[in-house]
Amino acid sequence: MKTLPKRSKKPGLAPGTLVYTGHGRVEPAQISVFSYSETAFDEIENASIDALHAVKESQLNYWINVSGIHDVALVEAVGTEMGFHHLVMEDIVHPQQRPKLESYEHHLYMVAKMMYLDASGNAVSEQVSIVLGKNYVISFQERPGDVFEPVRERLRTGKGLMRKMGSDYMAYALLDLIVDHYFVVLEEVGTQLEQFEDDVMGHPSKETMGQIREQKKKLITYRREMWPLRELLSGLLRDDSGLIRKKTHNYLRDVYDHAVQVIDLLETYRDLLSGLTDLYLSSLSFRMNEVMQVLTIIGSIFIPITFLAGVYGMNFQNMPELQWEYGYYAAWGLMALTALGMMWFFKRKKWL
Amino acid sequence: MKTLPKRSKKPGLAPGTLVYTGHGRVEPAQISVFSYSETAFDEIENASIDALHAVKESQLNYWINVSGIHDVALVEAVGTEMGFHHLVMEDIVHPQQRPKLESYEHHLYMVAKMMYLDASGNAVSEQVSIVLGKNYVISFQERPGDVFEPVRERLRTGKGLMRKMGSDYMAYALLDLIVDHYFVVLEEVGTQLEQFEDDVMGHPSKETMGQIREQKKKLITYRREMWPLRELLSGLLRDDSGLIRKKTHNYLRDVYDHAVQVIDLLETYRDLLSGLTDLYLSSLSFRMNEVMQVLTIIGSIFIPITFLAGVYGMNFQNMPELQWEYGYYAAWGLMALTALGMMWFFKRKKWL
Amino acid sequence: MKTLPKRSKKPGLAPGTLVYTGHGRVEPAQISVFSYSETAFDEIENASIDALHAVKESQLNYWINVSGIHDVALVEAVGTEMGFHHLVMEDIVHPQQRPKLESYEHHLYMVAKMMYLDASGNAVSEQVSIVLGKNYVISFQERPGDVFEPVRERLRTGKGLMRKMGSDYMAYALLDLIVDHYFVVLEEVGTQLEQFEDDVMGHPSKETMGQIREQKKKLITYRREMWPLRELLSGLLRDDSGLIRKKTHNYLRDVYDHAVQVIDLLETYRDLLSGLTDLYLSSLSFRMNEVMQVLTIIGSIFIPITFLAGVYGMNFQNMPELQWEYGYYAAWGLMALTALGMMWFFKRKKWL
Amino acid sequence: MKTLPKRSKKPGLAPGTLVYTGHGRVEPAQISVFSYSETAFDEIENASIDALHAVKESQLNYWINVSGIHDVALVEAVGTEMGFHHLVMEDIVHPQQRPKLESYEHHLYMVAKMMYLDASGNAVSEQVSIVLGKNYVISFQERPGDVFEPVRERLRTGKGLMRKMGSDYMAYALLDLIVDHYFVVLEEVGTQLEQFEDDVMGHPSKETMGQIREQKKKLITYRREMWPLRELLSGLLRDDSGLIRKKTHNYLRDVYDHAVQVIDLLETYRDLLSGLTDLYLSSLSFRMNEVMQVLTIIGSIFIPITFLAGVYGMNFQNMPELQWEYGYYAAWGLMALTALGMMWFFKRKKWL
Amino acid sequence: MKTLPKRSKKPGLAPGTLVYTGHGRVEPAQISVFSYSETAFDEIENASIDALHAVKESQLNYWINVSGIHDVALVEAVGTEMGFHHLVMEDIVHPQQRPKLESYEHHLYMVAKMMYLDASGNAVSEQVSIVLGKNYVISFQERPGDVFEPVRERLRTGKGLMRKMGSDYMAYALLDLIVDHYFVVLEEVGTQLEQFEDDVMGHPSKETMGQIREQKKKLITYRREMWPLRELLSGLLRDDSGLIRKKTHNYLRDVYDHAVQVIDLLETYRDLLSGLTDLYLSSLSFRMNEVMQVLTIIGSIFIPITFLAGVYGMNFQNMPELQWEYGYYAAWGLMALTALGMMWFFKRKKWL
Repeated sequence: MKTLPKRSKKPGLAPGTLVYTGHGRVEPAQISVFSYSETAFDEIENASIDALHAVKESQLNYWINVSGIHDVALVEAVGTEMGFHHLVMEDIVHPQQRPKLESYEHHLYMVAKMMYLDASGNAVSEQVSIVLGKNYVISFQERPGDVFEPVRERLRTGKGLMRKMGSDYMAYALLDLIVDHYFVVLEEVGTQLEQFEDDVMGHPSKETMGQIREQKKKLITYRREMWPLRELLSGLLRDDSGLIRKKTHNYLRDVYDHAVQVIDLLETYRDLLSGLTDLYLSSLSFRMNEVMQVLTIIGSIFIPITFLAGVYGMNFQNMPELQWEYGYYAAWGLMALTALGMMWFFKRKKWL
Repeated sequence: MKTLPKRSKKPGLAPGTLVYTGHGRVEPAQISVFSYSETAFDEIENASIDALHAVKESQLNYWINVSGIHDVALVEAVGTEMGFHHLVMEDIVHPQQRPKLESYEHHLYMVAKMMYLDASGNAVSEQVSIVLGKNYVISFQERPGDVFEPVRERLRTGKGLMRKMGSDYMAYALLDLIVDHYFVVLEEVGTQLEQFEDDVMGHPSKETMGQIREQKKKLITYRREMWPLRELLSGLLRDDSGLIRKKTHNYLRDVYDHAVQVIDLLETYRDLLSGLTDLYLSSLSFRMNEVMQVLTIIGSIFIPITFLAGVYGMNFQNMPELQWEYGYYAAWGLMALTALGMMWFFKRKKWL
Repeated sequence: MKTLPKRSKKPGLAPGTLVYTGHGRVEPAQISVFSYSETAFDEIENASIDALHAVKESQLNYWINVSGIHDVALVEAVGTEMGFHHLVMEDIVHPQQRPKLESYEHHLYMVAKMMYLDASGNAVSEQVSIVLGKNYVISFQERPGDVFEPVRERLRTGKGLMRKMGSDYMAYALLDLIVDHYFVVLEEVGTQLEQFEDDVMGHPSKETMGQIREQKKKLITYRREMWPLRELLSGLLRDDSGLIRKKTHNYLRDVYDHAVQVIDLLETYRDLLSGLTDLYLSSLSFRMNEVMQVLTIIGSIFIPITFLAGVYGMNFQNMPELQWEYGYYAAWGLMALTALGMMWFFKRKKWL
Repeated sequence: MKTLPKRSKKPGLAPGTLVYTGHGRVEPAQISVFSYSETAFDEIENASIDALHAVKESQLNYWINVSGIHDVALVEAVGTEMGFHHLVMEDIVHPQQRPKLESYEHHLYMVAKMMYLDASGNAVSEQVSIVLGKNYVISFQERPGDVFEPVRERLRTGKGLMRKMGSDYMAYALLDLIVDHYFVVLEEVGTQLEQFEDDVMGHPSKETMGQIREQKKKLITYRREMWPLRELLSGLLRDDSGLIRKKTHNYLRDVYDHAVQVIDLLETYRDLLSGLTDLYLSSLSFRMNEVMQVLTIIGSIFIPITFLAGVYGMNFQNMPELQWEYGYYAAWGLMALTALGMMWFFKRKKWL
Repeated sequence: MKTLPKRSKKPGLAPGTLVYTGHGRVEPAQISVFSYSETAFDEIENASIDALHAVKESQLNYWINVSGIHDVALVEAVGTEMGFHHLVMEDIVHPQQRPKLESYEHHLYMVAKMMYLDASGNAVSEQVSIVLGKNYVISFQERPGDVFEPVRERLRTGKGLMRKMGSDYMAYALLDLIVDHYFVVLEEVGTQLEQFEDDVMGHPSKETMGQIREQKKKLITYRREMWPLRELLSGLLRDDSGLIRKKTHNYLRDVYDHAVQVIDLLETYRDLLSGLTDLYLSSLSFRMNEVMQVLTIIGSIFIPITFLAGVYGMNFQNMPELQWEYGYYAAWGLMALTALGMMWFFKRKKWL
């Protein structure tokens, strides 16, 4: 059950009170600022609010990446500097949001879930908030991570369109990375599915059933994240705030297509996982059939002849057969005949 | 089945006849009046209809909370004073309504279900009617309870936006509390689910199955309450009566998001509960397999050798083996060989 | 299967030929005429077509109730007098219609199914046709029955709004009665469900399964009646023929809400009934497990020791144990040990 | 699987090449022409294309019925004479079309499936193409059959509206016959369902399961035919080609209602058939329970006492009980007690 | 699991970098150019980019078929020559696209999946990209194949409308071939289904279950390809780019109908395959019943009489029956009676 998110905001808390409700506070919060134009590029690690203010004044495009949303004060400082509605700030620090797109006067606020495999190969989900303004993108996440590294790299090298296009293209690039990482996670799921299938067909065990259930729960979670993400993307395509330029539409349509593909895969995997339960049950049934067949065959052959042996073990004084010279061999013959008859019967039933 | 609501209004009763159709009449009915502005605040416990009339005259915002809807006369008095349509009054005193939003000339009428855990940890559901007028909110419920206590507290202390915003914000605050309490109840459900899962995988019993079914019924009820509540909220967002101010929209959108999250969780839990039935069946099947395997193995090993023992217990006069000096040991050898053969067979089948 | 309606109109019959296709012709057909205004009220039992014509001339509101639609001639006479399209007359006398709303130039034609419990507590369904004109309502049904009695009573006493409002309110009152009677029938279903559940958990029998299936069929029928009835009601709310006055809208909305509640309940019961099949299967599986466990335990304990007894029943001449003074007791000891070993094994497996 | 249609048009065939792809070429193709007005009526059996041309010239309404669509040349001749698009002609001779409505400049083209019971009571499906022009209806089918006989009869006798209304009413009459014949076929299905139910509850056999599956396949086919037929009818109701007169609308609405009823029935039967699989499984489970109970009871009673008998069949020299005078009777007593104990145990478990 | 597509584009790759992500590079890439008008026709095998440029200049209609999309450079050369957006070029070389229709300024870009049976009868799926411009169609695929051969043939012979109509008709012809090949593949599936059914009813084996699952996965894939293909076709019908002429609409509507038929078949097969799992389980259950019945009957007949034999094998000194002259025969009689009693019992239960 640990894969199911819980929402633990105390009911009745006045809106407007910033409280972090996530769990893992791994590293100190930190702001990175990237300002860029087609020709210029500047990167400030560990920027202060003042540095941020300075960048805002310059007319360059800029991307601010805040990692460590547990640092509520920092988030509030950034939000105040950039003029966010306090509900936006609340949503940023509550990592149990549903992916969504909200339109405010001067910016678009997006929440998405970022999936990636951690060092030990487990799928980890993290909330990313992206605020898209006229010439800036501000992203918030908990762990610094390196999911966005390719974007940083492209900014630094100036390759591709990264520095040539506006901040809407930057938001697209981040969303593209988020969606593409789902493919990586789903490939892992696909591999697991194949393993489960082999297990279920070969040696159905309780453990496999438990693992299948765990996987099913994970897929449910991914699904709850992807469907609204798809809505978010289609919302961006329909957006009329003027923040999304025409030229970026083709790119957004491309991410949207990828998101639909992810959902397709998710639904396919869900279907296949559900099918596994049936497969497990029929595999068990099949095995039970085998087990019972063995018992029935052995039972049906030996029970009647044991009875015959029992008969000639009776102690009646007057039992003529016992006196026959070849009585014993006749008894064996009778028992062999009975057993063969049974075997012929099972042969005909195709049980043997 | 006790979780399923019943509607027992006698068919054929003329509309307009007020009859309370709920069950628990716990405490005497009571009116609390809270009048407030950004600077002023007044609270009247146990207010009379006259006090209510006085508050209405003052130009302040006010919130009237009526607890004890079994007191039909009181509800009628309040309703008449405030000018409610008699169908509204009927709906208030029939606690089997479906959550809904109805628009009347001077006010909006909303019905919702309030869920909370009572002292002994059981989920209790109660109908709340909220009437939102230009500068007032009137809420009706059966039990006084303290679900709305945080709002009272914020009114008293004047913290937050409570006293600064209009009555639409007050209605929002009540709805927010109602939705947030579902999370508390659902967290309880989540814990139960984990318990069920362990039970079903470990020691599937009839009791667990019964409890799962009870839980399923509860979730069905919650679902029947939440879907229309979500409609109610989206109705408020689309409302064009002028009673919902622009500024309050962001807040309502926030509750709406929470309602969607509750529904997401509900659907997830429903999925997981349904899966448990399959798990239970496969758990039983698995156990049956084990049971049968034990019987089959023991039967298959001992039935043939019991037959052999039976053979040498026969009383034929002419049975040469019986005279052999080491006949007895040879018989033991034969029986051991047979048993070992069977065990080898089961080993190969991976049943041992 | 008797709960499934059949449609037996001979294919190829020219439209326009009136033939009654129902089954139960219980009582002679009969027309009751109620004419009323706020101050006046007149009731004619067993009215003739002439009386009907007279009432039509008076400018009063009137309600004509025709019971006994098997009397095709009578229906045709009434229909001709009131100027019905011949397709309407056909639909009235074919009691296998789907609930629907049809708009004609001077009136609205509605078909609904009326459910009630008969004297012996069985749910009975009957087709009711309601024609709503400017100042009249004409209802057709087969059995006189007393479902509409409360309306008659309210007309007679003049209580409530019955005589103050127009014929649209009269149509509403009839529909309200029809919808409300579903609650009565569903309450019965609820009680049955509880009984089934107890049966299935306690002593799953074939009979219960058959009854569950019968109940399922009934719910399917109710559903096929309620969904179109809901459409009918929402059609009335959207109607633009001018026959439905503004003031009646709130009342119709109320019936509509009740219809939605009935559908909610129906879907809930359907869900619960479907769940019962799973419960039945798992109950059987559980019982089978118990049965097999008993056999396995007894078999596994006694089969090995019976073998031991068999061994010492062999007649070999040279069997040293047989000569031992305490051989017999040693054999008992060995057998007891074996049995205890088996019991310990089962104890560890938690089967005992 | 024979109930599933196959489409065997060779891929890559140029559109415009007429090739018949059906199977049964039973009788020579034939054209019947019926020309009529309110006062006149003429019928030509085995008409030639010239006769057809003559009728076209007369200003009467006419209905041309072509049976034997395997005669591609004939269909092409008729089509060319009437000015059909070559895609229409192709569709007419490919009897694997999905029911559909297509609008061309001068006529509407409809494809439907006609179901009827053949002489031996089997449901037979056949494709009917209907072309509706300003004053003509042309229908194409394979077998002459007598499904449309009632229409011919009404034309001949001049009863009803047949000759008074236009060709749109004629098209309606044909569609009405097609839809009504589904009721006949479904009644047969209903009877089968009852039979299956009795079989499954009474003596679940493999054959029943196979028959249920066959029936399921048939229902799938009917469904694939009815849903698009309903669309066709609703398309006719929305049609704005001017070929459907206002007066005919009420009649088309009537057929549409019947089509919806057929679909309702189909869905109901599908539901019930699906339920039968569960019923079958639970019936088998129930029977297995019974079987195992018998084995368990007999096994549990006799295995222990057989063991006791075995004990006293041992040949130890020193077995004091054997010497007791009433030892034999004591042994019987012990065995009886054991058996009774077991029976008491089963009684308590309600297995006896 | 091999039937599930994987998407292995490395996340973070800058859009605009062309990398082939398919697997099978079978043959060298190759361009064929077909230029045609009603009177002229020219075919260039192994055309160069220059040849392509020349054709572009001529005012003829032309079709360029590029096989071997692994040759990224070639695709880029063609794309640049024709002025494609670089996202189009990317999609062409990534063979994991979802079928879709995209509208660009001068052309429509379509992606579809082509299914065909390869030499060994296995269904093979391949991505086809079709770009439709004013007077040209350019198609991209991996393997040269001969699915499009009929179109080439019709171009060469000049039969049919191929050369008379514009490039939109050419695009239609290609799509028609693609859709029609699905029927061929589905016919194969139908045949398999019949085989499975026989296997499952006759001798349910684990292998069949595995094959059914494989088939189910294939159908899921086909479905994921067909639904978007249907959308593509309906998109073409609604297209307002001016590239689809009015005259071609009837033809596109025809392919659309075929696509709907394919989907109908797919859903039917899915239904039938799902049903097979139930059939398999019930077939196993039925067989288990048979197996257990045999064991129960044999056990119930022989266990009691073996007990009787055991009783008379006891060694009590005082056992009067043993001395009776006809004791032995009496014992046989008793045992026969017991066995017959049991058989009568089973006969009555209809187990024999």
